Amino acid sequence: MTDASTLPDSLAFTKALIDAESITPARGAVFDVLEAALKPLGFAIDRFTVGEAPDGPVENLLATRGSGAPHFAFAGHLDVVPPGKGWTTDPFRAEQRGALLYGRGAVDMKGAVAAFVAALARALPDHGTVSLIITGDEEGPAVYGTRALIDRMRERGIAPDFCLIGEPTSVNRLGDTIKIGRRGSVNIWITVPGHQGHVAYPHLADNPIPKLVRALADIDAIVLDEGTDWFQASNIEVTDLEVGNTAHNVIPGAAQARLSIRFNDLHRGTELVERIERAVHVHTPDAEVKGIVSGESFLTEPGRLSDILSDAIEDHAGIRPELSTSGGTSDGRFLHALCPVVEFGLLNATMHKLDEAVAVADLAMLTDIYESVLKRAFTR
Amino acid sequence: MTDASTLPDSLAFTKALIDAESITPARGAVFDVLEAALKPLGFAIDRFTVGEAPDGPVENLLATRGSGAPHFAFAGHLDVVPPGKGWTTDPFRAEQRGALLYGRGAVDMKGAVAAFVAALARALPDHGTVSLIITGDEEGPAVYGTRALIDRMRERGIAPDFCLIGEPTSVNRLGDTIKIGRRGSVNIWITVPGHQGHVAYPHLADNPIPKLVRALADIDAIVLDEGTDWFQASNIEVTDLEVGNTAHNVIPGAAQARLSIRFNDLHRGTELVERIERAVHVHTPDAEVKGIVSGESFLTEPGRLSDILSDAIEDHAGIRPELSTSGGTSDGRFLHALCPVVEFGLLNATMHKLDEAVAVADLAMLTDIYESVLKRAFTR
Repeated sequence: MTDASTLPDSLAFTKALIDAESITPARGAVFDVLEAALKPLGFAIDRFTVGEAPDGPVENLLATRGSGAPHFAFAGHLDVVPPGKGWTTDPFRAEQRGALLYGRGAVDMKGAVAAFVAALARALPDHGTVSLIITGDEEGPAVYGTRALIDRMRERGIAPDFCLIGEPTSVNRLGDTIKIGRRGSVNIWITVPGHQGHVAYPHLADNPIPKLVRALADIDAIVLDEGTDWFQASNIEVTDLEVGNTAHNVIPGAAQARLSIRFNDLHRGTELVERIERAVHVHTPDAEVKGIVSGESFLTEPGRLSDILSDAIEDHAGIRPELSTSGGTSDGRFLHALCPVVEFGLLNATMHKLDEAVAVADLAMLTDIYESVLKRAFTR
Repeated sequence: MTDASTLPDSLAFTKALIDAESITPARGAVFDVLEAALKPLGFAIDRFTVGEAPDGPVENLLATRGSGAPHFAFAGHLDVVPPGKGWTTDPFRAEQRGALLYGRGAVDMKGAVAAFVAALARALPDHGTVSLIITGDEEGPAVYGTRALIDRMRERGIAPDFCLIGEPTSVNRLGDTIKIGRRGSVNIWITVPGHQGHVAYPHLADNPIPKLVRALADIDAIVLDEGTDWFQASNIEVTDLEVGNTAHNVIPGAAQARLSIRFNDLHRGTELVERIERAVHVHTPDAEVKGIVSGESFLTEPGRLSDILSDAIEDHAGIRPELSTSGGTSDGRFLHALCPVVEFGLLNATMHKLDEAVAVADLAMLTDIYESVLKRAFTR
């Protein structure tokens, strides 16, 4: 394993983090590597393990340095998704081939954690506070991850002024995209009861399927919105239908559908569940409609934080990033409760895929950009 | 086992048939019992076994007596559905308790076979032809049952003028209902292809579910007909929906529905499949629509055959039967290709149920009615 206890450069430190296998939920070695790098930089390290199977135990790390304003936080995760089969390298043994460094977590997001630590080593602020909010469960159920870190911070009175998440937001070129918000996400289960019977005697049965079909046809016609200044239009997808009736001559006793709604800042998850429930109950008042909101939408209005980040990107990449809110959810849905949040990191093309890899040049440039961010954030 | 080789009475012969266990597909002993009863009556017996697992082998029996016109055929089956658990008697050991005789097949339809044989023993025609068309697979897939018997009859040039099927058609009282036809039945599978993707990026996916829902909503609005003189209205039921997508954040790649249509003599199964296909293709031209017609509808217009049967019922039961076409399919769907077909037998209240039982008085009355039918059919 690479020795990361001296002042790290981002490439060597990324390798060290990749070599510490950390399939979600992560604990132990990979946190040791991070702690060993942060301690010499003067950080106080708070590592704690929470939760039980199946969603835990999960290790989290909270590192703080300095005191007072401004308080800049970097948030990220050390866990990775399982490698899957078919890699051309060992996914847990970082390997550089030409311009690329291969390994699980290279872009999502050990590379960004390494780049931020390397940037810190070059530009330690002489005032204010820097925090690192690092979880071992962002890729899994995330029950004991960032939410537990936020609880811990509240208990300890740690309140950042802004937070940068190192998720891989770049699409075609490092710096082309940052996230200033994310859509919300809610899953909804619709169960329509009926009365089972023989198809030859439909008057003695009550087929739930036509009711479900009518409800879904109405839901299909719903236009939630046309999008907002910073968000694309909210979207409803029916993701599953389930009756499970194998008998050809039987009218089934129940029918189920599942929806997934990704929604912008015009909506709240619970209100959408109620809206779907009303649409369903028009056709079948005794249907059960159950929603689970996995995250509300959030938006960090363009302002000082996105300006700092955009300027830093322009310094080194020569482009100004698109301010995006597209894509899936992130831990920003939780962290936004603390302070304004933006997300910026490496290219996301290979994340979660076989042969995940980062361009060595991108690691260096991301370190430069993060360094600029720190300098701009701590300019008096 | 009861000795049925002497002239049988219907009660003793029903017992003998029940005691010969014959879960579908049936072979062997139960046919031996029938053959032993028919031979002394002068029938030529043609027993043959056809088919292989899983739908066979199946034994069938074709008995003929006499020659020339009129040619009266009785059709039935000796197989029974499995007993299930919870009988208060041994389902394969006929047991009389008070007015009822218990045993699997008592009403469906060993009792009717016994009644017809007993009626024959009392009223053997002195001219014309009598046939018995008896299969060992009416309750199962029916691939090697009555269809094989019809092939055999065609090969041998056996062509009845009319056919009585002994299925239990009576509802509340023996003789209240005969069937002069049956609706057709077709099952249709609709498979709508799509393109799988992540719910956060619906523009990169193609969700098949909304297309299927729109197609099903249109199908739900189809009125096939308002019924005819002898048939209730044709009916479409959606019997299953299937996507099988367990991932909440995934837009599925295909969606499937299954329909069951019971239709009257205004339609043909293949035409209905084409009609559904057109309705589906309006919304999704690349959907696959596959139909399996398990039986076309058939009707024996009220006339000589239903008159003979109604008069015979009136002779003994004192009521005239309703001429019905309701309910499920029967082997009439095949036999109708040979000649006019009507169905009349015992009460269907306990068929396929635990503690299947026939009233001893009904067995006697059915024998009387069948005897009257034979006499009326063979009146010069």
